[in-house]
Amino acid sequence: MSDNTAPVAPEAMAGLLAANSGFVTSYGGDPFTARAADLIRQMLDADAEVRFVASGTAANAVALAALCRPFESVLAHEHAHAATDETGAPGFFGHGLGMIPLPGAHGRIEADALAAALAQPQNGHVQSPGAISLTNATEYGAVYSAPALGGLIGAAKAKDVGVHLDGARIFNAAAAGFDLVAIRPLGVDILVVGGTKAGMPPTEALVIFDRKLAHRLDARLKQSGQLPSKGRFYAAPFIGMLEDGAVLRHAAHANAMAARLAAAMPFALNHPVESSGVFVDMDESTRLRLEAAGWASSRFLDGSVRFMCSWATTPQAVDELAEALNSIR
Amino acid sequence: MSDNTAPVAPEAMAGLLAANSGFVTSYGGDPFTARAADLIRQMLDADAEVRFVASGTAANAVALAALCRPFESVLAHEHAHAATDETGAPGFFGHGLGMIPLPGAHGRIEADALAAALAQPQNGHVQSPGAISLTNATEYGAVYSAPALGGLIGAAKAKDVGVHLDGARIFNAAAAGFDLVAIRPLGVDILVVGGTKAGMPPTEALVIFDRKLAHRLDARLKQSGQLPSKGRFYAAPFIGMLEDGAVLRHAAHANAMAARLAAAMPFALNHPVESSGVFVDMDESTRLRLEAAGWASSRFLDGSVRFMCSWATTPQAVDELAEALNSIR
Amino acid sequence: MSDNTAPVAPEAMAGLLAANSGFVTSYGGDPFTARAADLIRQMLDADAEVRFVASGTAANAVALAALCRPFESVLAHEHAHAATDETGAPGFFGHGLGMIPLPGAHGRIEADALAAALAQPQNGHVQSPGAISLTNATEYGAVYSAPALGGLIGAAKAKDVGVHLDGARIFNAAAAGFDLVAIRPLGVDILVVGGTKAGMPPTEALVIFDRKLAHRLDARLKQSGQLPSKGRFYAAPFIGMLEDGAVLRHAAHANAMAARLAAAMPFALNHPVESSGVFVDMDESTRLRLEAAGWASSRFLDGSVRFMCSWATTPQAVDELAEALNSIR
Amino acid sequence: MSDNTAPVAPEAMAGLLAANSGFVTSYGGDPFTARAADLIRQMLDADAEVRFVASGTAANAVALAALCRPFESVLAHEHAHAATDETGAPGFFGHGLGMIPLPGAHGRIEADALAAALAQPQNGHVQSPGAISLTNATEYGAVYSAPALGGLIGAAKAKDVGVHLDGARIFNAAAAGFDLVAIRPLGVDILVVGGTKAGMPPTEALVIFDRKLAHRLDARLKQSGQLPSKGRFYAAPFIGMLEDGAVLRHAAHANAMAARLAAAMPFALNHPVESSGVFVDMDESTRLRLEAAGWASSRFLDGSVRFMCSWATTPQAVDELAEALNSIR
Repeated sequence: MSDNTAPVAPEAMAGLLAANSGFVTSYGGDPFTARAADLIRQMLDADAEVRFVASGTAANAVALAALCRPFESVLAHEHAHAATDETGAPGFFGHGLGMIPLPGAHGRIEADALAAALAQPQNGHVQSPGAISLTNATEYGAVYSAPALGGLIGAAKAKDVGVHLDGARIFNAAAAGFDLVAIRPLGVDILVVGGTKAGMPPTEALVIFDRKLAHRLDARLKQSGQLPSKGRFYAAPFIGMLEDGAVLRHAAHANAMAARLAAAMPFALNHPVESSGVFVDMDESTRLRLEAAGWASSRFLDGSVRFMCSWATTPQAVDELAEALNSIR
Repeated sequence: MSDNTAPVAPEAMAGLLAANSGFVTSYGGDPFTARAADLIRQMLDADAEVRFVASGTAANAVALAALCRPFESVLAHEHAHAATDETGAPGFFGHGLGMIPLPGAHGRIEADALAAALAQPQNGHVQSPGAISLTNATEYGAVYSAPALGGLIGAAKAKDVGVHLDGARIFNAAAAGFDLVAIRPLGVDILVVGGTKAGMPPTEALVIFDRKLAHRLDARLKQSGQLPSKGRFYAAPFIGMLEDGAVLRHAAHANAMAARLAAAMPFALNHPVESSGVFVDMDESTRLRLEAAGWASSRFLDGSVRFMCSWATTPQAVDELAEALNSIR
Repeated sequence: MSDNTAPVAPEAMAGLLAANSGFVTSYGGDPFTARAADLIRQMLDADAEVRFVASGTAANAVALAALCRPFESVLAHEHAHAATDETGAPGFFGHGLGMIPLPGAHGRIEADALAAALAQPQNGHVQSPGAISLTNATEYGAVYSAPALGGLIGAAKAKDVGVHLDGARIFNAAAAGFDLVAIRPLGVDILVVGGTKAGMPPTEALVIFDRKLAHRLDARLKQSGQLPSKGRFYAAPFIGMLEDGAVLRHAAHANAMAARLAAAMPFALNHPVESSGVFVDMDESTRLRLEAAGWASSRFLDGSVRFMCSWATTPQAVDELAEALNSIR
Repeated sequence: MSDNTAPVAPEAMAGLLAANSGFVTSYGGDPFTARAADLIRQMLDADAEVRFVASGTAANAVALAALCRPFESVLAHEHAHAATDETGAPGFFGHGLGMIPLPGAHGRIEADALAAALAQPQNGHVQSPGAISLTNATEYGAVYSAPALGGLIGAAKAKDVGVHLDGARIFNAAAAGFDLVAIRPLGVDILVVGGTKAGMPPTEALVIFDRKLAHRLDARLKQSGQLPSKGRFYAAPFIGMLEDGAVLRHAAHANAMAARLAAAMPFALNHPVESSGVFVDMDESTRLRLEAAGWASSRFLDGSVRFMCSWATTPQAVDELAEALNSIR
């Protein structure tokens, strides 16, 4: 159904437990937060302001509010989470900030559509683009290559448009070959590194490469309800998952489970299976039969039925699901 | 220094670990969330919509935004957390919502001041009160009695002013004799039950007694970045702490530690010690000597130096602090 | 080019001059405002709160903010002014309020599309409809009949969705046969009566039928920058134009000029000419030749080239334009 | 009672009538707007973006929103219009933007109080200053000298705090000797030139000296409901009043009427009479007797009773009021 239904990976929980000892400074002034931020910077091989927040929706919205003014818009894939599935959070945190939906196969923004949007005349009657929001892996499990991402970013930057990268499943992209070290050189201004979908309890790392965007950042976060008092509990899972590379191992596992499911899938794939999701062409009566057989799935924006694998998905579960799919077909 | 510097109590962590097993519905549709909400309703002996969110700042701000429109104001003690220490979060979540600061000894709003504010003429040029925000225990560790709270609430309700109760330290108030079951009959519309300061990892229960205020509540929370995907991790600590009454036991301990400190305190108390905080009259050079001796404290809005006890404060620590205080005096 | 390029009609200016004498109460407490509000109520044969504000964009946005909460959306024609041409003002005044664009021929919302949008499942991840925004005459000069409007309103009301009527060109609709007295019985909650496009200096009447929505209305308007200090200057033009029916006479003239242009038009009409606008199929090189010949026009959202008539458009001008159009064809 | 109760001066109305001819580009692209902007720049001897908007409340709020982010605050005199009399408009347009009230005699901010506010430690829990809002003439009719204003501005600029000057009565200040040409060199970033109180119909000039703050300004104004379609009607009164210096002549007259009233005033003056307002010490029963005698006045924030002169106040009226005051004394 969703990678949000999974429990927390043992390494993340170990990190949490290890941090739960003694008294430490609140509001992010603790050594766990410092350590986790260092690990993020090492992982990206880049200098950056790093904060740990509770919500990916909020992290994305805060990032977009930092990049734009209310009379501007965010360019995003028409099916991007921030555009369709966050109840207008960018407009709420961004005070009326608009959204310009762009098409593109498999959740990747089409370069021509972006160029056309960026070429639109600017005037007082429209919310012109202030930022582009990219997602890797995409909502449909596709993975941008660094050059593909760089092409979109270059086009945006040429028009002074800021760049946000929604990394809710960035570890799945990394496990599929996307180089995390390329993110900063490509020109990303703000990155959200998803901990939650990667197998942690709720936590996301907000990574601001461009320090000018971090002016009074703690005040911004506090006002937005995203400066946790007991900050160590948002940082610690990252320590547990990053220190020995567990997070990539788990992401690779999730990707492998999706590939295994795809290989056994009796329904047509609507998108290439490049990371942890499998999107298939299935009519509703079939989907309901599957549900009756005990397997949850979700109907997605493009009409696909989605199966999502996580760190906790077992090969047995995949095989049983494949069997169920074959039997209801 | 603060009850936010303490680790998580064992019962809360046990609740968390117990919930970390198997796949459950995301976004609050899981059995842990249902169970924790039931426990909250039982504790309050009242029907209510209950949600578990990450941030007390956000919970308060969302509550006030639900009670007011942007062209209205919130009546609050001039030193209330929502008025002074949340970076304007009520104005951010409430889109310009104002704040009317009221005086009162020990953090309790003075009834006459409230009456005067409610009697102000209303016109198009001012933000008239749409809600009152009360805090129990107060910022200065004082505890409202039910009748005292009822008096303020009654005055507000007579003017159609909504009622928010910030319960960041409601368990400390309860341990000091405040009856939680009285909250609903007194007329509170929205209550925030603080888990974090009570010894849990970051989690707060948003309790909406008046169901009209809960219209499309999940959409409100999601847009505000406060609808956690893995909801079980915000509900589970409450289960661990409420099921066997641990939370009140811990709060009573924190209160007892404050009383122990007060009894040995060589500096004048600025506020009666009714719950977990001790506020004393101490000049800055003395405070710095204390800091040099390894003891953190904070200078508060009224000029007091604050010492805050938590579930994790030991009698030994209190005695050592008392000794240090006596030696630097 | 636009009815906004025209000067002010003599009756409106006479109203203004007549009001410019002596001292009167500010902020709408003056007798001119009272008189103009009475005339609006008479015209609509309905009780209502009436205010006069400077901006149609703001009037629409304030109305939608009154009808919705930020986590809700406004159903509107995909080419409605509020959806496409107000720089996201509803989201700004409504604090992130969303917009659900609906299709429909000639700017009229298609009943089936509305039904489908209203039937969408509601959940925490989407901004469900809180209001519908209708426009009469539409952006394409079409005029809703009362039954057609009533059908859409009825469908919305059945789902507890509030109703806003953007009447930027309501007098053109009225001159084309739409009965203004039907507006209230049809179920409209808030109406904006456009003065500006009707031949007045900038002024719009905000008409709130449902008094519950007018709670602390002056505070709402003041906070929104729409409570004019010298209110008489926004009310007076309405007096001049409503007292002897001039406004409808002028609107009928504008409509007649559009019909005259349509009759002589050598290009295909993209929309029926029911009020004051003529929308034609014209390629860009032809439009530029027309511009070179001294005639301004605008390319509209559906690709049409728009010619807009106003109270000040003369038959001679129409004939000369028709001649120019024929010559460049 | 207020300078908002006066009619429009003949030169302003003449400007309006002169502009009411022929068709001109809408949304500020007309020659009247260009001419009025030139006159404003000449008057200030400075380059600037100039726009004409309907509302001083909105102009101030838009200016402050351009200077600050929501998690910042505006330093303002505790009785400044923007702080006390605009229903929280800065917080609405600025999305939760805070206000830091500062004391000072006669509406002038006290330099020491400003220094103390600017010296406050910055952290994530408070809304630190992003702008200072100054008013000349002040709410109490006092006039800042250029050096006094420069001192405050210098202190603000040294901390990277932006500078807004509310010139609702800037012409009264100018008529009292304040040099308008000094405004830009003193370091003001955004100035609002009040037309309304100066004897025009509702119109204010928004003057942005720092062009970086004018990025996408028309979009900002349109979204805020402050980009008038028929822009000429907000520019034209300025042309009529600025072209031959009428505005200063009228302001000098208003100031002279205040001086005349002060000279005959039987009640103690609470503030020096430096421009057009007279503030006196009068108990409420006396004020009500005055009201019964047909003279409106208003009780101000400091407890004074205010008498406000305008371009339209006649010496006869002043003398009659003085007589009435003497008789009720």
